[in-house]
Amino acid sequence: MLIQEKVNQAKQLLEEFTIDCWITFVRESQLNGDPILPYLVSADVTWHSAFIVSRSGETRAIVGLYDQKTVEDTGAWDQVDSFVEGVKAPFISYMRELNPSSIAVNYSVDSEICDGITHGMLLTLQELLGEIGMANRLISAEPIVSALRERKTESELDAIRAAIQNTEEIFDLVTPFIKPGRTEKEIAAFMKAEVERRGLELSWEEMVCPAVFTGPATAGAHYEPTDREVERGHILNMDFGVRVDGYCSDMQRTFYILKEGETAAPADVLDGFDTIVKAVTDSFNAMHPGAVAKDIDKVARDVVVDGGYDEFPHALGHQVGRFSHDGTAILGPMWEKYRSKPLRKLEQDMVFTIEPRLTVEDRGVATIEEMVVITSDGADFLSHQQTEIILIG
Amino acid sequence: MLIQEKVNQAKQLLEEFTIDCWITFVRESQLNGDPILPYLVSADVTWHSAFIVSRSGETRAIVGLYDQKTVEDTGAWDQVDSFVEGVKAPFISYMRELNPSSIAVNYSVDSEICDGITHGMLLTLQELLGEIGMANRLISAEPIVSALRERKTESELDAIRAAIQNTEEIFDLVTPFIKPGRTEKEIAAFMKAEVERRGLELSWEEMVCPAVFTGPATAGAHYEPTDREVERGHILNMDFGVRVDGYCSDMQRTFYILKEGETAAPADVLDGFDTIVKAVTDSFNAMHPGAVAKDIDKVARDVVVDGGYDEFPHALGHQVGRFSHDGTAILGPMWEKYRSKPLRKLEQDMVFTIEPRLTVEDRGVATIEEMVVITSDGADFLSHQQTEIILIG
Repeated sequence: MLIQEKVNQAKQLLEEFTIDCWITFVRESQLNGDPILPYLVSADVTWHSAFIVSRSGETRAIVGLYDQKTVEDTGAWDQVDSFVEGVKAPFISYMRELNPSSIAVNYSVDSEICDGITHGMLLTLQELLGEIGMANRLISAEPIVSALRERKTESELDAIRAAIQNTEEIFDLVTPFIKPGRTEKEIAAFMKAEVERRGLELSWEEMVCPAVFTGPATAGAHYEPTDREVERGHILNMDFGVRVDGYCSDMQRTFYILKEGETAAPADVLDGFDTIVKAVTDSFNAMHPGAVAKDIDKVARDVVVDGGYDEFPHALGHQVGRFSHDGTAILGPMWEKYRSKPLRKLEQDMVFTIEPRLTVEDRGVATIEEMVVITSDGADFLSHQQTEIILIG
Repeated sequence: MLIQEKVNQAKQLLEEFTIDCWITFVRESQLNGDPILPYLVSADVTWHSAFIVSRSGETRAIVGLYDQKTVEDTGAWDQVDSFVEGVKAPFISYMRELNPSSIAVNYSVDSEICDGITHGMLLTLQELLGEIGMANRLISAEPIVSALRERKTESELDAIRAAIQNTEEIFDLVTPFIKPGRTEKEIAAFMKAEVERRGLELSWEEMVCPAVFTGPATAGAHYEPTDREVERGHILNMDFGVRVDGYCSDMQRTFYILKEGETAAPADVLDGFDTIVKAVTDSFNAMHPGAVAKDIDKVARDVVVDGGYDEFPHALGHQVGRFSHDGTAILGPMWEKYRSKPLRKLEQDMVFTIEPRLTVEDRGVATIEEMVVITSDGADFLSHQQTEIILIG
């Protein structure tokens, strides 16, 4: 179902970007999968396999004999050719017939989700197409692959909403479990057990999902939970997500552990937390189709710096999909590692996180990560925005 | 532990192959992992990350800030540099210092396990090295990566042995469960439940692990179990493996369902089965370091064809490791899709499957898959060789 939906969307994208033909070319995809493959077929493939979508609307897959039935069963491919000895003959024969003037393949310097073809496979494709004088027709499929992943269909949004709902429920369940003396590891284990009980997968690798950080001496945001104990007067935060029907959530929440006699977080903690809430709210309000991604980052970054805090050493937000970090456009500053991604424009149906962060001295890290979807004229929260710090008694 | 063992092995391989420097260059490895990455680091990395081993024995990793601690904790890297804005400055600075005359990177037309770098990342590396006049020093790391994966250390062999033991135990457990009327799906579900009970992972994707085929009208070897029922007079076979400590088993066993009154398999079934046993035994006996992989395939292929059966439409065997299909050398014929892999020579400590197959008309498919390790002067069975067809009453 989803595969048919996405392959049909791909046909429209070829038309939109005026590209004749798009080839996803993979082998032993269990080892070296192209990130776009799950949109095209429901299982891994073994031999050199070509998934070819044409601007005419025609689709053709050429795969090893034992993968033929799995590919046919998706219902997304007009014809599935199979081979025993090698892909060359059926591939060259079909490409001759098609004779496309542009052939898009999945490589990209700027966008890792569009960079699925290995260098060895690109060399193989050049060799094959060279035999029929088409090697110079190869172009990057980045526009197609970006849009295909970024513009979520309604069923993709439904899966993401379900992942968020589970995440929020698990945050609610773990809250009464957090108390002074509990370790980061114990809190993480509690959440993982609940994920397992629900039969869900984690959004990213088990070692750091959830990531749980308590107190001022916390390591970087991607490091695993430790035996550090929850202490009164400290801030605790966590970064967590689950996968439902292949789609991820990615959220952060901030807690404060009340000291004896306290009934609310102290002024320094509240100032930090409220600055993060304002950074989320203001950047959310700036989002709409056509907005440049880096400008959204700047709104939140300015709120944090104007509040007297160090700027966060990461982007404000990233897209979410089949991976917790998905899509090309990123809400980030023009740092080298983001390449041209912050210059991309927001489009309807993109799903972003918003996740500013700051350190409250001697307390810990205040950080919130919400999830939003771009609408026709703005954005909607997919998560329930955290506006109050969660107090642990 | 394993990571230190393999990084140390890599240093020796650089010396053996006279290569100055080997770089594994990845980003967002959850999306686009290099198959060699688990040998170098225990978790995924996010930003452009370089893992550099030098012939001098020096090792250096350059990774994003949040991945630094995870990489340091492997104990395999002399120094771990981190960055916030981009990999360029620390990478160029280190490469200038190192000034290697050859720089091996993970691409290969012939061998998918050595083809970890995406085309976009190769372009990025060329761009970075171009700035210091070193772009023309890039070569394929295929010899290093092949040998590193193929020459198993003792702890890797121990993990594989444990995976095989679990597989054999589960074959034993499922045997009394198989009876006329049971479906392929029910048999597969029984085995999966046992894998889960043992807290193990499957060697390959869930949909086709185990693969269960019963009777003459079976689909290809990689297709998922169906509602087809076990019937008397038919052959049933299965293909199954589990993963222990990251290492796989991959095995096939053949069963015969006795007809009322039968106490043994009939002559046609036995002839097919015994031909497969002979193909396994003869090809096993031909294995030794220095033997050419395709010659081992030919021994078994000849046994099957000389027995009056069609030759199997696949290689006799492949290597096994962190993936069920691992390594470069393959026991296969010179078919296009195998590229130069059948020309490789067997080396000590390589782990292979031996898996000939044939169809017994009106009965089903007889197939056995054993696992063996190459020794200093021959080969040893890692699995307990199946020499009798398993009879179901």
